[in-house]
Amino acid sequence: MQKKLSEIASLVDGKLFGDGSIIVDGVNGIEQASKSEITFLANSKYTSFLNNTKAACVITSFEVPKEFKIPYILVNDASLGFIKVVSLFKPEDKKCSFGISDKADIAENVKLGKNVSVGSFTVVEDGVRIGDNCVIYPNCFIGKNTTLDSDCLIYSNVTIRENITIGKRVIIQSAVVIGSDGFGFVKVNGKYQKIPQIGTVVIEDDVEIGAGTTIDRARFDKTLIGQGTKIDNLVQIAHNVTIGKNCIIVAQVGISGSTKIADNVTIAGQAGIAGHLNIGNNVLIYAKSGVTKDIKDNQQVSDYPAKDHALARKLRVYINKLPELNEELKRLKESLKRLIEENNK
Amino acid sequence: MQKKLSEIASLVDGKLFGDGSIIVDGVNGIEQASKSEITFLANSKYTSFLNNTKAACVITSFEVPKEFKIPYILVNDASLGFIKVVSLFKPEDKKCSFGISDKADIAENVKLGKNVSVGSFTVVEDGVRIGDNCVIYPNCFIGKNTTLDSDCLIYSNVTIRENITIGKRVIIQSAVVIGSDGFGFVKVNGKYQKIPQIGTVVIEDDVEIGAGTTIDRARFDKTLIGQGTKIDNLVQIAHNVTIGKNCIIVAQVGISGSTKIADNVTIAGQAGIAGHLNIGNNVLIYAKSGVTKDIKDNQQVSDYPAKDHALARKLRVYINKLPELNEELKRLKESLKRLIEENNK
Amino acid sequence: MQKKLSEIASLVDGKLFGDGSIIVDGVNGIEQASKSEITFLANSKYTSFLNNTKAACVITSFEVPKEFKIPYILVNDASLGFIKVVSLFKPEDKKCSFGISDKADIAENVKLGKNVSVGSFTVVEDGVRIGDNCVIYPNCFIGKNTTLDSDCLIYSNVTIRENITIGKRVIIQSAVVIGSDGFGFVKVNGKYQKIPQIGTVVIEDDVEIGAGTTIDRARFDKTLIGQGTKIDNLVQIAHNVTIGKNCIIVAQVGISGSTKIADNVTIAGQAGIAGHLNIGNNVLIYAKSGVTKDIKDNQQVSDYPAKDHALARKLRVYINKLPELNEELKRLKESLKRLIEENNK
Repeated sequence: MQKKLSEIASLVDGKLFGDGSIIVDGVNGIEQASKSEITFLANSKYTSFLNNTKAACVITSFEVPKEFKIPYILVNDASLGFIKVVSLFKPEDKKCSFGISDKADIAENVKLGKNVSVGSFTVVEDGVRIGDNCVIYPNCFIGKNTTLDSDCLIYSNVTIRENITIGKRVIIQSAVVIGSDGFGFVKVNGKYQKIPQIGTVVIEDDVEIGAGTTIDRARFDKTLIGQGTKIDNLVQIAHNVTIGKNCIIVAQVGISGSTKIADNVTIAGQAGIAGHLNIGNNVLIYAKSGVTKDIKDNQQVSDYPAKDHALARKLRVYINKLPELNEELKRLKESLKRLIEENNK
Repeated sequence: MQKKLSEIASLVDGKLFGDGSIIVDGVNGIEQASKSEITFLANSKYTSFLNNTKAACVITSFEVPKEFKIPYILVNDASLGFIKVVSLFKPEDKKCSFGISDKADIAENVKLGKNVSVGSFTVVEDGVRIGDNCVIYPNCFIGKNTTLDSDCLIYSNVTIRENITIGKRVIIQSAVVIGSDGFGFVKVNGKYQKIPQIGTVVIEDDVEIGAGTTIDRARFDKTLIGQGTKIDNLVQIAHNVTIGKNCIIVAQVGISGSTKIADNVTIAGQAGIAGHLNIGNNVLIYAKSGVTKDIKDNQQVSDYPAKDHALARKLRVYINKLPELNEELKRLKESLKRLIEENNK
Repeated sequence: MQKKLSEIASLVDGKLFGDGSIIVDGVNGIEQASKSEITFLANSKYTSFLNNTKAACVITSFEVPKEFKIPYILVNDASLGFIKVVSLFKPEDKKCSFGISDKADIAENVKLGKNVSVGSFTVVEDGVRIGDNCVIYPNCFIGKNTTLDSDCLIYSNVTIRENITIGKRVIIQSAVVIGSDGFGFVKVNGKYQKIPQIGTVVIEDDVEIGAGTTIDRARFDKTLIGQGTKIDNLVQIAHNVTIGKNCIIVAQVGISGSTKIADNVTIAGQAGIAGHLNIGNNVLIYAKSGVTKDIKDNQQVSDYPAKDHALARKLRVYINKLPELNEELKRLKESLKRLIEENNK
């Protein structure tokens, strides 16, 4: 596909600085772009990359200094502009429907919407409903009575157990498990007996779930992932957890049972949250934090046990100064000793 | 199914306070139960939930104050009573046998017990033996000469490699890998060469293994998971690890090679244990701990490097007081300085 | 198979101390070996095991004291000698080719090398090229246009998405995901929009990847795993990460987006590295570290935030002495108070 810069500027609602008749045929990163490709630069901090790029044009959200002679398109949000241009040149072929494989195993009592794709060796059990335009890759398992609303994209080797509800436009990366039994046991005469996990999982619209992530079904009721929340790889979400809307949960985070997380929360990589806690709106939990108490709205926490991030930073400074503090104390002790000796003379 | 409260009281060996002729038709959580359902309350701390529940009856292990007019069944262990009642109303349909799918790939030289189920697209290789009543969901792989004893439940997308031994009543959640190669290399002329991992894995009776967990095979001999031990999701168990009986290993824990863990040990979420260590009986390792030394029986440890939990808590208090300590030292220094100046007058 | 000790000594380029006509028929660990088996001992620290071993012979890299009457073969590197002997007695049967299963789903436009094995229920999509002697176990997914060079070994339930490049002799354990979408979103009007991830993953020769590990595809360009690098289980490698040659990445490590790791780096278990960092050659990152800054060549770091390992150890000693320091300060304060009181008399 070939597009003039003027056409692209119009597509992204941007203002073109340069020759609108220049033609580009692809999109790429600023270091990799060839001279027929367009690129983007979201942050003026990386302006120096413009020295060496071969790109035909750059989409930016800041004015490019005149010494760079590269044409550019000024937009409000360079990332958003970039998304539009990528979609123009590389429409996601994975979303192309490939139809129902005759090597899939689909139970008789299944309702499939229009334009659904189901890959080879995927099992769809009794009572499942799959909405329009859903694409399910090979080697997946969709358990009894589970429902997928329209436009979902499920990659290979995914397990979605029985009685699960998945909203619209949900993307599930490979090897995810949704609806595994919650981890609940009671000790009877020295042995653990399993507490039945008869609840479910509800995934709302526009959620994305990263590769290898596990989301356990509730003991009763439901484990809930709110609308627009994005979950990275290898995250563990225990039974009866509730996550609000538009949260970001980075890789290898663990959230223990029955914890409730409100909206717009960001949890950075490898953080852990204990069970039965309440995490407020707009909270930011730094990487590797261990949260052991409720957190109110708008707080930022770090460290283990997690505390106010500014305080945690301050304490780290003091820890780094411990050798100095010990020296100081030693000197003081000696001064005092000398003084006492002098007094006793 | 409909049951009288008197029948349920008898089932759970409990004492009914209320009208035994009341009929219930299901079981649910205290917040979700409808007026024809029975619920339970394990902890008197949550008595306030009784204000709003619609449940017909509650199973408890404490006397319900008279102001709550709800019928209740008093038992020794509410969780255990609950397990019995759930089993009554919702016999786990996943344990229903579904037979051998004609879309499974089962080698000729395989011994299947009575009433075994094998799902579509599951591969069972040569020499495998599967005991009575085992249920293996779709898309699993059971490698050569592996043995499953009776009544095992293996969910979808599980890999159990060759020569593995699995006991009775073992439950394996989806996407688990058992018997992957241990991580062993030796550096020869600057390059790592693989050390063959020719041992196996033995999983004893009544073990449960959570979704996405990986258990490596031994270099020699075996990696061992002892009877009744319960393992949560995304746990890593390295080669030649030995875990005793009735341990609880919470999500995202990692246990390094050749470490030996005794019986009744609890390891909380995201903790890590270095290799070649011995962890005693009844040890409790707190969440996110990093264990670098042997731990004796009955110890509780936390933090990194893991230390006695009471000491770790004490040190945290002192760390939190560091700003104050620095202020104190400063004041002391000034007092001393003034004193010296006075002395010198 | 039966071999004389003299034959084995010659195989491993070692010097035999003992009777060369003794025959052994297998290899095993020093604690498990029977009297017809050979074993090895890499470290003189474990010499005491020689008291109880039943093995016919031990391969070592140090002279065995005379009081142990066991025959031994002295070599430069006992682990390497061991690898050779294991390969002699137990040639890895998993590498035996089993041919192309008629239950695999291989697209028409696929190029298969000589002696390739593809297991049942594995999907190989359009445009894939698989080199000579590759073995792909059941229930895998190989996406469009992905290339595997020769002698790769891919265990069951692995996903390798589209357009990925895999080198020679790469070993991928079960449940690995390669080429899942990177975790990239931009907030537009309060909602996260997905940034298309149109790059790829390149895995160079002789890499091994542990069970359940996830490696995301790049936004543009590629995520790269360098030659000879070995990755353990449940590791998360984010989009656009570059890892050099001969690195060791232990279980449950997480590496955030766009970080560059040089050669011969070792990252111990459960460590995490923030995004956009540069980690130098020969760096050692201790277990559970949280790396938040660039690290220069040859450094060793630990703790969170990661710092020079010797400094981190020193600070820990000071933290352990905090109770004592507080006592000291208290005594000093009292001494000073008494002195001031005396002065004021």
